[in-house]
Formats: sequence, structure tokens, C-alpha cells
Amino acid sequence: MLCRSLLYTSVLSAALLCALPARAVPPKIAIAETAAFDAASVAPFAGDYADVYAYLGKQREHNLAQLQRWVRQPSISAQNKGIAQMAELLRADLQQLGFRDTALVPTSGHPGVYGYLDAGAEHTLVVYMMYDVQPIEPTGWKVDAFAGSLVDEPGLGKVLMARGATNQKGPQRAFLNALEAVIKTRGKPPVNLIVLAEGEEELGSPHYPEVVAKYADTLRKADGVFFPMNTQGRDGDASMFLGVKGIVYMELEAKGNAASGGPQRAEVHGSLAAKLDSPSWRLVQALATLTGPDGEIAVPGYRDAIRAPNREEQQLFNGIVRGREADAAKQLESLGAARWKNGRDYRDATAAELFDTTLNIDGLVAGYTGEGVKTILPHRAVAKVDSRLVPDQTPDQALALIRKRLDDKGFQDVEIRKLSGYPPAQTSVTAPLTQAALSVYRKYGQTPPVAPRIGGSAPYYVFTQTLGLPMISGGLGHGSGAHAPNEYMVVEPAAGSKVASLEQVERFYVDLLYSLSDALKRPKP
Amino acid sequence: MLCRSLLYTSVLSAALLCALPARAVPPKIAIAETAAFDAASVAPFAGDYADVYAYLGKQREHNLAQLQRWVRQPSISAQNKGIAQMAELLRADLQQLGFRDTALVPTSGHPGVYGYLDAGAEHTLVVYMMYDVQPIEPTGWKVDAFAGSLVDEPGLGKVLMARGATNQKGPQRAFLNALEAVIKTRGKPPVNLIVLAEGEEELGSPHYPEVVAKYADTLRKADGVFFPMNTQGRDGDASMFLGVKGIVYMELEAKGNAASGGPQRAEVHGSLAAKLDSPSWRLVQALATLTGPDGEIAVPGYRDAIRAPNREEQQLFNGIVRGREADAAKQLESLGAARWKNGRDYRDATAAELFDTTLNIDGLVAGYTGEGVKTILPHRAVAKVDSRLVPDQTPDQALALIRKRLDDKGFQDVEIRKLSGYPPAQTSVTAPLTQAALSVYRKYGQTPPVAPRIGGSAPYYVFTQTLGLPMISGGLGHGSGAHAPNEYMVVEPAAGSKVASLEQVERFYVDLLYSLSDALKRPKP
Repeated sequence: MLCRSLLYTSVLSAALLCALPARAVPPKIAIAETAAFDAASVAPFAGDYADVYAYLGKQREHNLAQLQRWVRQPSISAQNKGIAQMAELLRADLQQLGFRDTALVPTSGHPGVYGYLDAGAEHTLVVYMMYDVQPIEPTGWKVDAFAGSLVDEPGLGKVLMARGATNQKGPQRAFLNALEAVIKTRGKPPVNLIVLAEGEEELGSPHYPEVVAKYADTLRKADGVFFPMNTQGRDGDASMFLGVKGIVYMELEAKGNAASGGPQRAEVHGSLAAKLDSPSWRLVQALATLTGPDGEIAVPGYRDAIRAPNREEQQLFNGIVRGREADAAKQLESLGAARWKNGRDYRDATAAELFDTTLNIDGLVAGYTGEGVKTILPHRAVAKVDSRLVPDQTPDQALALIRKRLDDKGFQDVEIRKLSGYPPAQTSVTAPLTQAALSVYRKYGQTPPVAPRIGGSAPYYVFTQTLGLPMISGGLGHGSGAHAPNEYMVVEPAAGSKVASLEQVERFYVDLLYSLSDALKRPKP
Repeated sequence: MLCRSLLYTSVLSAALLCALPARAVPPKIAIAETAAFDAASVAPFAGDYADVYAYLGKQREHNLAQLQRWVRQPSISAQNKGIAQMAELLRADLQQLGFRDTALVPTSGHPGVYGYLDAGAEHTLVVYMMYDVQPIEPTGWKVDAFAGSLVDEPGLGKVLMARGATNQKGPQRAFLNALEAVIKTRGKPPVNLIVLAEGEEELGSPHYPEVVAKYADTLRKADGVFFPMNTQGRDGDASMFLGVKGIVYMELEAKGNAASGGPQRAEVHGSLAAKLDSPSWRLVQALATLTGPDGEIAVPGYRDAIRAPNREEQQLFNGIVRGREADAAKQLESLGAARWKNGRDYRDATAAELFDTTLNIDGLVAGYTGEGVKTILPHRAVAKVDSRLVPDQTPDQALALIRKRLDDKGFQDVEIRKLSGYPPAQTSVTAPLTQAALSVYRKYGQTPPVAPRIGGSAPYYVFTQTLGLPMISGGLGHGSGAHAPNEYMVVEPAAGSKVASLEQVERFYVDLLYSLSDALKRPKP
């Protein structure tokens, strides 16, 4: 067995690493490729749909009101607030647009929403949507989060400020506005559409596979998947990504038990630490075996399943980092951090974000967590831990390695509960869908950096892996505050801004519909 | 420097321990003494105060009502609920009994209460009291916690069930009932009395030193300190203890910082663990250096300051454990644990409780601690840790050793905040006050096991160390549920019970007043 995956090299020899398996060393991800992907190599989309654009211009107020209508309907999945109403609102909107067989899709959790728009076309595009939003932060909002307020923001212009404005109601309804304009002017879109929405994205999509499974036969006949998304930064530059990491999310719990002692029923007085075992120390010691003192993963073999970045991924990586080293300080500042992990440079930190796995403590809780002094010996201690997965890691293999590490170190009594898990997902930059999307960006003067994946996770594997479909996301538009107060999406940018107006966002989606439709007609690579 | 204190021996040689300082081994506390202290060696108190007892008999209903009046006044220090009212109630009661110069004593927290009862005697006894109680548990109470309810409990008899019934209003007011009976029948008590109460015992007595400091000159002229307490178990057997451990309570916090990275302003998305350092892992790894995998203290030199149990303490220990090995399983059951710490036997576990220090995690908190899945990289992580101190440890020395351990392991960035700390306190079994109390127990048919100290902490050092006074606590009476629902004190025991009635509790205190007074007249050993 290799001590660690060959794709990682280190300043220490492999032999030394084997001798000291608990000593974690930041992995260095080898990027041998020197060429860099450049979106400028893609020709701008030539399509022009003046009649549709004109319709959008006439519908400007109506279309903005559609976004406001959506954000005014609360749909907080974590609190089951307005979920049923928003699901029905979406279903009714689809029906009104001419989708047939629209339905709420019951799951073990919140319902999915389905609709099929038959354009009599040869090809079919699936549109993924999420209709839920994050809870409202108790402080920090300067408007009612569900009022659909239009606010003038200095330097940005007029923005829709509301929960869901950018994540994800704004861009999704903008896409439907574009679709409506196409239908009203041209009678039908150039491709059949399936909308398959979920109401639990903010919960980690635990039941989306049930929604997909219900329509699997239909979905398998589709040709690709699209997810509408604001991708412009505050400076107006758009970016694109082609995949997501997988994830396994678990709770590690130590509690009083027969094997390792400690109180089992309830907390006891803190002075009893003299003669009773402590589940809290047990958890701390168990966790400590999973990383080195520097927080780097120390689970033997944890990276063995990771395949090295392939040529395409390396070229995409080069395209992302080259010439952007100067942004590193700005990025750190925006994250509120003084350095990259264990002193990595910008290039290595970005490589880790794209190509490396993680082991992260999301939460720790035991005993008394309030202010001041309370002396107890808690009977249980829990850590919430997530690991982001890159190809070819799988949730169960990652879990098994963590379990084995704890067992090998004598922590058989520390329980691991898997709360969710799914593999990564990715689409190639050479896929016709990707090329089609890039061509539309090019038409609008954008040459987006293209990431092979992002550091975050989403269950896109249900499309890319389960159904074998290419999946892309994208769109013009700028918003921010997705999980924070004063979430917004720009609707009328300030003078001189490169950020798209709502109308331009909708034009982009019109073009994208035609561009993607053309791409689906081309033979698959 | 010795690798570890000489009083601890181990199956591993000292040399091996030095070579592997991080490997924690349960310390074995050597008890060479074979003799055992037996309270039966103390002659029963011969005093008889029939007139006072008769008065108590006539005041039975009135005296019970006095306890009810006290428990009906809420005084939750943690919530500042009824504190001012209870302080004034106690002050007024003292004034009504003939105490002079009664006063509320302002502190930086809740006020103390002072009163001086001049009996024209040569000697003065300080009575320590606490007038605050624990918060009310949200569920589990079968009566209103502040109604002063009398409840018939099967196997126990009639009990006063209320917050504070046994901790500590019941025994304290019973003591004042006894004092009142003495004053009404004999005109005055046999000794001058100073009551010095605090309202923050349940908060760790953070400001009691301020109360003591204000009356230091007066207190220094006193001869001893007494704390009224129910000491009978459910079976009616009384016990006695002569001291308490000290404590140092601290928070260890890791947060994003320039030296070791991590987000400094706020939590960030969990996927950023790929390229940002984690304060949570930092805390876990720092904590893990403080114990072995088995939770035993691994801070070098942490036990160096601990003096070996002296001859008296060893004899007291022998008196406690001998013949009680059969209770071990029952004790474990009542604590909800399957074994003593790391497999110690009952004798070693008890020795650790009396003579060893601790390092306990009272609480752990970082990031998301709710149900389900939320993926964040928290910017701070906190552990609440307390250490119980035995002679001759001091809070600051213990803190310094923990600080040094973290520094030596490279965790200079993990902050330690001391929340409270004070040294242990102890009085000798040969002290006249102790012997006097034992003689009263003997008069009432009790031969209590006497512990040199308990595993818990209280700031009695202000009397024993700062003022140099002997201090004892005691009394008949049985209660339970001090920090739990349905707290009670027995007032009329069931037929055949060995538990004292309220009237018997009061008689005991009458005798104790005279017995302690006699003791103070004897020359100090």
C-alpha cells in the first residue's frame, strides 16, 4: 500500500511520512501542465433575437415585479416557513407558462416541483431549481427580508434587497422571464424543458434523489442540465465553474459507556472528574487523531483515492491562477484571514480548493456553553465534521477510513453518525453545453475564468453520475449576501458599471436557451 | 526537577515516564498508614438543654413556617431573581433575633449580609451562610418550586419540597430556629455570633472575599467558623468532611489570528477548510496535549506541588473506605457510570477524589451546534475547563503549567482566560471545633465517617487561610436534589427512619452551639 497518494509530493520523503503517519504535512498538488485554458478561444455566440429582446424591454416593470413576487413569498426550508406556498407558486407559474404535467413531488421532506414544456423539439434540457431560502438573520437587515424592497446602493445601483434575491429566486425567475419572452414572441422555446426543483437545497438536498428517482425514465431521455445563477462579481466580471465537490457530513459522539466509562444518564458534578471518565476528553482525543497539530488531515490513506488533476483540469487551473496572484491579498482580506492554510502560497491554496479533500469541524458542543462558570462533567460530547470529496473519493470510503483511524487508535466507542453524503460531480470544458455557455458569455464581452470545480458541494451527481447528463450553471447578474443579511441582486446597475441589468440578465438567458439548444443538436464528443 | 511528584507511584518506572511525558498513567496514591480514624473514639456530648428542647417542641409549627417563609422567597443568583428581597429578609431576621449592626454588604455582584450578636462572651463563632439558590429546571418539578409545599414522600415521610429546601435555606433557618430557642429560654447564646452570608455561592462565590475583607478586622478576632448543613443520607447515617478542594476555572479559546491563520471576523463557508486554517482543530489539538488518550492529565509537573496525604488524612481515608467496598457498585449506579476512571478500584477512586487534582472539560462550543447539517468553518472555538486543587497546588501555578504546556507544544496562540480560582481549605480532625461537633453527632447515635475533604470546591480559604480560623460544617437532617427538580428536606420522617425530624435537627444545633462554645474555651492545639 502506498503511504499516500502519488499525486502529492512533499518536502519530506515518503519513507519519513510512512514512519510518522500522524505527522501531517500540507500536500503539494503537482501541476505539470504549462498551457492555460482561455475562454477567449471560444467564438462569441452569433444568434440575435431582436424581437425577443424588444419584448423584454416592454416587460421591464412586469418582469421586475415577478422577481419581487417570488422573494415576497417566504420559503425557509430549515423552519418549514412558507414552503408549501412557494412550491405551489412555482408549480402554478410553470403551468401558466405552458408546462404540462406540473406537480408537487412528495418526498420524505419538503416537496419537489416538476413541470414539462413540450416544444416538439428533438432535444430536452433539464432546468434545476431550488425554491427554498436560508433563515433570516436576527440582526443586520436594513429592510424587511420578505418585502421585495428596491434599494439604491452606492456604487451598485438599484438592487432588489431580499432573502432569495440572488440565492436563487432572482436568477431563476429571470430565466423564466426570458423563457416567457421567447414563448410570447416565438410561440415556443427551441428545446423541450423539464423543470425539476427542490425545496431543501439549503438543508443539503437530502431528498432530491427521491425527486429525481420519480422522473428518472423521463430525465434519462434528456440531454443536459442547466442551473440559472448570477455569476458576475461586483466588478462585473463573470466566472464559470464546471463541477462541485462531494461531501460527507457526520457527527462524532463520545458518551458515557461500559467500555470507556463516564456518566451515561446525565451530566454529573465537575468534581467527579477525579474518579469518573470524561466523554469530552474522549472526543477531544479521538478528534486529535484525525489531524496533525497543524490541522492537516492525518487519517492514513485518506487521499489515496484522489486522482491527480488531469490535463484539462490543470489547464483550467492555470487559466484561473495565472496573473491573479495580486488578488490573493484581497481574497484573504475578504475572508478575514491573515494567511492561507499553514502558509501555502496563493497558487497552492487555490490548487487545494479545487483538487484536495478537506476535514472540517463545523461545530463542537458539550456540557455548559453559556457565560461564566458552571462545573459539570458532561455525559456526551459531539463534533460536527464534514469532508469535501474530490474524484475519486466516495462518502462511504471516506467514512470507513475515519472509522478505521479511530478504531486503530482505540476509540471504538466513539460513534460516527453519517448525516449526509454524496460524491462530486463534474462536466468537461469541451462538452457542447459548456462551449455553448462560454460562447454566450463571449457575446456579452466576458471571458470568464473557468474552474473545473468549486470548493463547495451540491448533489449534482444525480444528474452527472446517476443520469449521465452534462450539467452547467451560469448567467449574467450580480448579487451577494446569499447566507447573510441584506442579500441583494442588482436590477439597474450604476452608470459605468459592468454589471448586467435585470433586462440584460434576461437577454443572456434568451441567447443561452438558443445556444444550448444548438449545442444539443451537435454530436456528443 | 522530578518527572512527577514522589507521592505517586506507577507500574511504569519513573525513567520511562520521563521519556514519554505525554503518556498519561493513572496515578496511584500511596496510603502507607494502616490505622483508621473512628468517630466512636470521641465521647458523646454530655450537655442537656431540656428547657430549650421543650421550647422547640412548642414552636414546631412556627419553626416549620419559618423554613417555608425562606424558600418562598426566590433568590436565584444566576438570574438576579429575588436576590435583593432575600438579602433584606435575612438581614431583618438577624435584626429581629437581636443581631446588631446588621447590614447588606455591597459588592461588585450580589450583596453580602452581616450581623453581630453580642452575647458578652469571651469567644466568637462565625456562621457562614449562602442565601442564593440554583435556577429552576424547566421540567421535572411536581410542585411549584417556590410554594413551600409539604409533600408526603413514600419511604421518607413529610418533606418540604422547594428550591433551597436543603441547599441551603432549610438547614440555615433551622439553625436560626435553634438560636431563637436558646435566646428565648436562656436570654443569650453561649458564644458571640457573626453571621456573614453571601448571595453568590451558586456562582462560585466570586465576590465573597470582598464581603470578608470589609469585616476582616472583626473576623480576625473570631475563633472559628460554622456552616449549617444537612449531612444525613437517605438511610439516616450522617457524615462529616473537614475541607474542600480549591479550583481554577478557565476558558481556552482558539480564534483566527495572524500567527496561525484562520478567519478572524466571522465564520466562513465550510468548503474553505481547503485553504484556510481552522481555529476548531487548533483548539482540539491544543486540548489534546493536556491529557493522554485516556483522559489522564499529561501536563508535565502538574502534580509536583501536591503534598502526599499526611498521617491524619491517611487515617481518615482508611476510616472512610474500610468496610465500604460493597457500596462501590451502588455509588457507580447512582452516578450512572459503569466503572471508576480508567478502571481504578473503589479504593483508588476514592483516594483520587480526596487527594488528587483534576482537569475537567465543563463545556465545549464552536460553530454550529444545532440539529442536522450546516457547513461552516467557525472563527473561534472555546473550551471551559476546571481543575480541582489539593494542597499545596495554587490556581496561578496550575494555570502557569497549563500555559507552559501549550506554549511548549506550539500553541502560544491559544488564549487562556481565568474565570475564577482559589486554593483548597481544610481543618484538622483534632481541632477542638471538629471534636466538639463529633461529640454532638455521638450524642445522637451517629459515628460519622470523616473525610479530610470533599471532591468539590468552596472558597473556605477566606476563613482557613486568609483569617487563619478553623471551619467546620455539619448538622443532622436529610435532603436531596440540591441542583435538580423536587429538591427537598425531610421535616417529619417516616416511622422507623433514622433521619432526623426538623425538631431534632434544631436540637442538634442547640447542642452544637454549646458544644462549640465549650470547645472555643479550650486551649488551641
